[in-house]
Amino acid sequence: MPRGYFITFEGLDGSGKTTQLRRLATSLESQGHTVVTLRQPGGTALGDRIRSILLDSRSEAALGPIAPAAEMALMFADRAQSIAEVILPALAAGSIILCDRYTDSSEAYQGGGRQLGSERILSMHAAACNNLQPDLTLLLLPSLESSLRRARRRNQRHVEKQGTDENRFERESDDFYRRIYDKYEEIAARAPHRVVVIRDDASIDHIEQIIRNIVLSRLDHAEA
Amino acid sequence: MPRGYFITFEGLDGSGKTTQLRRLATSLESQGHTVVTLRQPGGTALGDRIRSILLDSRSEAALGPIAPAAEMALMFADRAQSIAEVILPALAAGSIILCDRYTDSSEAYQGGGRQLGSERILSMHAAACNNLQPDLTLLLLPSLESSLRRARRRNQRHVEKQGTDENRFERESDDFYRRIYDKYEEIAARAPHRVVVIRDDASIDHIEQIIRNIVLSRLDHAEA
Repeated sequence: MPRGYFITFEGLDGSGKTTQLRRLATSLESQGHTVVTLRQPGGTALGDRIRSILLDSRSEAALGPIAPAAEMALMFADRAQSIAEVILPALAAGSIILCDRYTDSSEAYQGGGRQLGSERILSMHAAACNNLQPDLTLLLLPSLESSLRRARRRNQRHVEKQGTDENRFERESDDFYRRIYDKYEEIAARAPHRVVVIRDDASIDHIEQIIRNIVLSRLDHAEA
Repeated sequence: MPRGYFITFEGLDGSGKTTQLRRLATSLESQGHTVVTLRQPGGTALGDRIRSILLDSRSEAALGPIAPAAEMALMFADRAQSIAEVILPALAAGSIILCDRYTDSSEAYQGGGRQLGSERILSMHAAACNNLQPDLTLLLLPSLESSLRRARRRNQRHVEKQGTDENRFERESDDFYRRIYDKYEEIAARAPHRVVVIRDDASIDHIEQIIRNIVLSRLDHAEA
């Protein structure tokens, strides 16, 4: 039975990972690979229900705030369903899976940003995901200054779109993004083979090229 | 600051725990205690949303089956929210909390019955509940034969109520209930101080009396 390849994209909001994921998908498909893309939360019927709960908790008074540990468990319920319904079947069929955020995001955002700590996230990952890790993680991490600038810009766009009601969109502080950034660095140092950090602050086209080279070289090795 | 007391009721379906919980609540209230009762899943707005997802996954083709690990994570999302929103505030206010099922149920039903194993459940409990355990667990566990007879009877009533469509209600096997029973025995052996096993197959009134004696003695010790 052929065995596929599981790639995740990670980085701060505004790092360009969604754009890069789409470009890599197009490129791999043009070479004849079967590509499955998914984002988290979402991608399954359960994921859509969970997504709507998370949105309601932020925008509607009806549901009220969700406790950080409960939010984390919801994210992992979605992930467990994606694994069973999408990722494992696609791997078994020999496809390449491109996933926009995975457990590293939980560790960086909830563990680092929200200060729940890595241990609780990794314990949850072991339980809900049976420790399934991607073969390769592409972490888009330009300099902290550049990342903060992008995150702030994106934050600002959200505030403008949602109005200035602070309840409707919590404007995150630089410290919050700094903690996420530091946690991503920590993850990359811990798993240097799995996580490839792309620190370039180059053009989208140039980063696309870097990513394609990394992926093709890894796929060659996986097939060898 | 006064510190309340956290009691959970456990047992197989049909063990009478919900009836006993209600009777204990009435008795404690008549003695002037403030009692908070809750069931899982439910008891919070998030819990109700999760409950409806779990029901939809069993009764509606729209959602489809939920992976066992995803179901477990949803149960723990509900539990984490109950802890933050109900249990911890009630404990801080000095109330007695009576909870119909808690993590032991996940371990017995998902860990034992569905064969996910204890380790994944306890890992999830550490992550989502920060390992919060009740002060006292009342485990209603009459003989295996009697438990199987009650579970079968209850199962049968469900099937009759829901019609005979097997998709709408999965009729569980004796083996499933036997695994749950064995896992409950294992939990009780592991935590003999926390878990009090009530093996009597006596009348509801008699068991009510046994439970009241246990609880009053524990509360006396807790206050001393």
